[in-house]
Amino acid sequence: MSASTLGTLFTVTTFGESHGKAIGCVVDGCPPGLSLSESDIQPELDRRRPGASPYVTQREEADRVNILSGVYEGKTTGTPVALLIENTGQRSSDYDVLATVFRPGHADYTYWQKYGIRDPRGGGRASARLTAPLVAAGAIAGKWLHEQYGTVVRACLGQLGDIPVPFRAWEYTDDNPFFAASDDVALLSRLGERLDMLRVEGDSIGARVDVVAQSVPVGWGDPLYAKLDAMIARAMMGINAVKGVEIGAGFRVVSRLGSENSDALTPEGFAGNEAGGILGGISTGQDIVVSLAAKPTPSIRKPRQTIDTAGNPRTLETPGRHDPCVGIRAVPVAQAMLKLVLMDAALRHRAQCADVQRTTRDISR
Amino acid sequence: MSASTLGTLFTVTTFGESHGKAIGCVVDGCPPGLSLSESDIQPELDRRRPGASPYVTQREEADRVNILSGVYEGKTTGTPVALLIENTGQRSSDYDVLATVFRPGHADYTYWQKYGIRDPRGGGRASARLTAPLVAAGAIAGKWLHEQYGTVVRACLGQLGDIPVPFRAWEYTDDNPFFAASDDVALLSRLGERLDMLRVEGDSIGARVDVVAQSVPVGWGDPLYAKLDAMIARAMMGINAVKGVEIGAGFRVVSRLGSENSDALTPEGFAGNEAGGILGGISTGQDIVVSLAAKPTPSIRKPRQTIDTAGNPRTLETPGRHDPCVGIRAVPVAQAMLKLVLMDAALRHRAQCADVQRTTRDISR
Amino acid sequence: MSASTLGTLFTVTTFGESHGKAIGCVVDGCPPGLSLSESDIQPELDRRRPGASPYVTQREEADRVNILSGVYEGKTTGTPVALLIENTGQRSSDYDVLATVFRPGHADYTYWQKYGIRDPRGGGRASARLTAPLVAAGAIAGKWLHEQYGTVVRACLGQLGDIPVPFRAWEYTDDNPFFAASDDVALLSRLGERLDMLRVEGDSIGARVDVVAQSVPVGWGDPLYAKLDAMIARAMMGINAVKGVEIGAGFRVVSRLGSENSDALTPEGFAGNEAGGILGGISTGQDIVVSLAAKPTPSIRKPRQTIDTAGNPRTLETPGRHDPCVGIRAVPVAQAMLKLVLMDAALRHRAQCADVQRTTRDISR
Amino acid sequence: MSASTLGTLFTVTTFGESHGKAIGCVVDGCPPGLSLSESDIQPELDRRRPGASPYVTQREEADRVNILSGVYEGKTTGTPVALLIENTGQRSSDYDVLATVFRPGHADYTYWQKYGIRDPRGGGRASARLTAPLVAAGAIAGKWLHEQYGTVVRACLGQLGDIPVPFRAWEYTDDNPFFAASDDVALLSRLGERLDMLRVEGDSIGARVDVVAQSVPVGWGDPLYAKLDAMIARAMMGINAVKGVEIGAGFRVVSRLGSENSDALTPEGFAGNEAGGILGGISTGQDIVVSLAAKPTPSIRKPRQTIDTAGNPRTLETPGRHDPCVGIRAVPVAQAMLKLVLMDAALRHRAQCADVQRTTRDISR
Repeated sequence: MSASTLGTLFTVTTFGESHGKAIGCVVDGCPPGLSLSESDIQPELDRRRPGASPYVTQREEADRVNILSGVYEGKTTGTPVALLIENTGQRSSDYDVLATVFRPGHADYTYWQKYGIRDPRGGGRASARLTAPLVAAGAIAGKWLHEQYGTVVRACLGQLGDIPVPFRAWEYTDDNPFFAASDDVALLSRLGERLDMLRVEGDSIGARVDVVAQSVPVGWGDPLYAKLDAMIARAMMGINAVKGVEIGAGFRVVSRLGSENSDALTPEGFAGNEAGGILGGISTGQDIVVSLAAKPTPSIRKPRQTIDTAGNPRTLETPGRHDPCVGIRAVPVAQAMLKLVLMDAALRHRAQCADVQRTTRDISR
Repeated sequence: MSASTLGTLFTVTTFGESHGKAIGCVVDGCPPGLSLSESDIQPELDRRRPGASPYVTQREEADRVNILSGVYEGKTTGTPVALLIENTGQRSSDYDVLATVFRPGHADYTYWQKYGIRDPRGGGRASARLTAPLVAAGAIAGKWLHEQYGTVVRACLGQLGDIPVPFRAWEYTDDNPFFAASDDVALLSRLGERLDMLRVEGDSIGARVDVVAQSVPVGWGDPLYAKLDAMIARAMMGINAVKGVEIGAGFRVVSRLGSENSDALTPEGFAGNEAGGILGGISTGQDIVVSLAAKPTPSIRKPRQTIDTAGNPRTLETPGRHDPCVGIRAVPVAQAMLKLVLMDAALRHRAQCADVQRTTRDISR
Repeated sequence: MSASTLGTLFTVTTFGESHGKAIGCVVDGCPPGLSLSESDIQPELDRRRPGASPYVTQREEADRVNILSGVYEGKTTGTPVALLIENTGQRSSDYDVLATVFRPGHADYTYWQKYGIRDPRGGGRASARLTAPLVAAGAIAGKWLHEQYGTVVRACLGQLGDIPVPFRAWEYTDDNPFFAASDDVALLSRLGERLDMLRVEGDSIGARVDVVAQSVPVGWGDPLYAKLDAMIARAMMGINAVKGVEIGAGFRVVSRLGSENSDALTPEGFAGNEAGGILGGISTGQDIVVSLAAKPTPSIRKPRQTIDTAGNPRTLETPGRHDPCVGIRAVPVAQAMLKLVLMDAALRHRAQCADVQRTTRDISR
Repeated sequence: MSASTLGTLFTVTTFGESHGKAIGCVVDGCPPGLSLSESDIQPELDRRRPGASPYVTQREEADRVNILSGVYEGKTTGTPVALLIENTGQRSSDYDVLATVFRPGHADYTYWQKYGIRDPRGGGRASARLTAPLVAAGAIAGKWLHEQYGTVVRACLGQLGDIPVPFRAWEYTDDNPFFAASDDVALLSRLGERLDMLRVEGDSIGARVDVVAQSVPVGWGDPLYAKLDAMIARAMMGINAVKGVEIGAGFRVVSRLGSENSDALTPEGFAGNEAGGILGGISTGQDIVVSLAAKPTPSIRKPRQTIDTAGNPRTLETPGRHDPCVGIRAVPVAQAMLKLVLMDAALRHRAQCADVQRTTRDISR
């Protein structure tokens, strides 16, 4: 299987480097008959886009998506949907020094050692820019899931550095530049100030992102090795900068008793959702709840010790325009990732189990 | 791709249910010429086996592995290695009530809703017993990795409930029934007492497991969607009861600055390993460091609310012999999983990059 | 993907060598709820079994299939169905010379060069014996296809050497030891005599096998690279000794005009089936028609020139008990292969297209 | 696995429809460090291009390939190589009638029934135009294979209708518009006249194509289900209009004796190549020899009976500019397909067997 492909039945094969001619993806396996145009996809890309707020990198990337194939007279035909995003606004000269010096904490060194060659412009293939095609593909998956099952996938910033961002309501996530599910003015100010300060200092900070899928039918996910939680973990851990993934109660389970952690079943529904909507790798019908930890951007202006390709010691102040908190932009990306995983699981499920007659009521409905 | 298959080139396809005739797996893609016999595999299985200590379930499962194919005159031939473990010691009568009542926090309900049918004996396919074939397969991967690259993969208990288990030395992990990397007598006593108490109470507890791979060459892992950390996350999150996975600093990155989190490069090596040995989804040559959170066994004797297949409310005291802390047995399983992921990555890497000439020295050596 | 796995959603992963402990397979992705026991599978295995007639090899292989998993109370559970066939009746001593001498036209030389090691007993992994697990798996696929869609897959001997075997009726195929769809006594005698003579001479002969699937719904097959005909060609060409595959008119199309080759559509159905039931890689709803060419067994007693592992010239009279026409036993194998390909295509189709509303009548019904 | 992806390690994922905005593909898994530019690919596309000779369709498709990614400073980086070919010269109005009327022998009816929707312009996804991205990808594979192993893959027209085209020398294939490996003036005239006549009559004709790979190392191909011949058969049968595939002696083996069909081994090499360079699914080191049968284009001007989407009978004279013999253009396509299959097999082989020490000399060298 291509390492640039995500999914088994609903597949997304991406291509491109940060400062190449274009980036994009081929989305295959989409059911036919779905209404689809660029206007279904562009808003999702715009949410992820650099320059969209003062708190993310100020690179200007128009990120205009172009559907090249797979849609006829406004509907998907069941053939591959190719999405193209031409690269504009690159300032490759920013990166000249990076051709020979490795950024600490970045993929520079490992790509160089693995392939013996790398495109250093803007991080090349390892750039967070490569999440754009996934966000675009996620928009397709999200539309289909919503039309078929009413599924809604949302994400928000859960914590920025040591500042927790308590959840108030989903509706607020697009009203502030942090994807905070909050309208707490003091909190939002504090987030802004922290990021302003980091920008001044040339430093960066980590974040936690929370993702929730609602109205996911019971039964999705394929044990033992395509479990829904396993596939979510793979997708999330593959997002740039992510170092941890939790489902439901996550690491809090470590210090819990069995008698307090499991979610009782009642005729009226589950009495809790510590499991995060997944048991045995299969969706329970409850909300799917995922959290992830994004490390602080390793591309910072503060000087750090490193080496160059000749192995000599160097001090690097990473040039270019970078996010002080890459975790913010990870919000729409994680949201897209969950859509993609759910879509694939939905198709896999109906391939094998389309005929199953349930004899027990779905208690989550 | 079969949902019962793990891996792309080095693949493990498992089969079986807890109380069926047999469990096992087909290991394919193993390089030819590896010396292999049951004695290479059995010790790993014995470590995972129930009944091996007073602190895990007292079911007696002999778990004798039998190599059915793929080995000729003591060496692998490059053809599939089938491993068979016959089921013995099952007391299916323990599970009669579970045929119609769902255990809270367990896969009973979701399997039933997904498939419309399930084998309730011993948890069926969802039983932790199904980790045995993976442990067996992991022994093969581990042997090859060690012979080819000197790679060593180890795991230990990092925390049991709220009792942290500080790391002292790997050598101690097999000297106590908890896989604690410690010879601290007081600590070990405390762990034993906690488990004894839980057994008396009919309750269970969570755990954290730490896994480390040493001597992993730089360059393994395939961006963007077969990243080494992504594949590790998938494998680990797929282990029974696991709800969280971390690489390196994991969730601690959330509250960190970029200036304190990234690992400086020096001609003498990396100045730190917050990244857990993986950057951009590719191994750095440092130790691969993984942690996971295992929830408390949902199979407990304490009475809990649930429903039956007819949807009626029931109170369940799970019968049978269960681990008070399934996280303990997750230690050898997580160890095996990391071996399997690394083996697959090793083969993928040499498929694409066998000819790469490195011009920069590997600073991790 | 494991090279020992056939299929994407309905997958068969085989293992074993001719003279190892056992052969078998793991069948995954089978829909739950299918009634299944050994008695559904054994008759298909018995048709393929050596020793079943005087005209195939007289090795005695009981080929008793044992379902190890995936079935509970007589029904498939949706989890992997493992099938085990223990090896009995091997006379490995027959093969001593073959440990160091390569049979011309056989896989001996290529396995040896590829893997640097091989199990020479009975052809090892390359033995036609390894088609038994596929026949077993095919029985499961065939049962499901028949129950769901009324699909019936049949095969017969189309030609033996230069003796054509004109088709009379399917019902005759199990009334003679050649799988001839004929009750022509003179023809059947001639076939028997030819095989007797070959046995005496220590020679072998080629054959053509014809396979037909009836009641295949329109719409199966996934362009561009999982086309139904492409997947059939892969499966058939992978059968031991097969050197050619045709769909519908096959090579006869070379000398035809477009005006005489295409099958007109009429409201009452297609006016012909030169296409063999597949257009654009998708089933038309007509019979799927496949032919294949099986070469004469290369394992013959007649002396031939070859070399040994040291590279020295040798003369070899292959010992052991071999089919004078391996193409006869290829009949049930090809039949099984078509079932497996159709089953996988059926599941893939409903994964993507379960919701498609057809606005044009299926003219094949 | 995406149905629009060919290959396991060296993968080609295509997209596009005949008259959409663009067609193209993502080539993943290419080893890094290969020199690559559009000039390595364009000549292969030009050979396949319509309008290149008077004997193929006169549609003007510039087919200019654009490398969008995966190449940096003239070398592949190991990341996906995206190839884009913008569509120009489409005259969609030619196809208006085809929006509601099915061409006999074409994919119109099956796409419509499978997906419930189809892009009728120029055959949409089922158009032979979609072989262009494969030819482009094949150029990359071919270049790498030649640089690494000296492998050369060639193809020629073997028969056109009832006119055999005896092989004289490969060098002639590009000197005539039929890809005939011949400089026989009389024969070439006859071929031209036959095609002229067909064009006047509005009819078409079938063809046989022969493909040969030279300097393929011994050992490529993975039994049992990724056998080299099986993968070749899949790739070839997937080419538009192909109805039969042969390896080596192909269907001629049906009437042969074992004593005359197998290729003796001698210290100086194989005494024959009836096997077409593959035994047991693994390359022998000899030439790989493949033949395929391409049916006459079903898109002909001659009136034929058919139905429309409402199920009513219609008479159709297919409009547009079509090849009188689509088999001619299948020559470079088949050539590309063999390169792609060999490349994938090469990478798979070294993944598993990179360390194998051969103890027997390769007799094909």
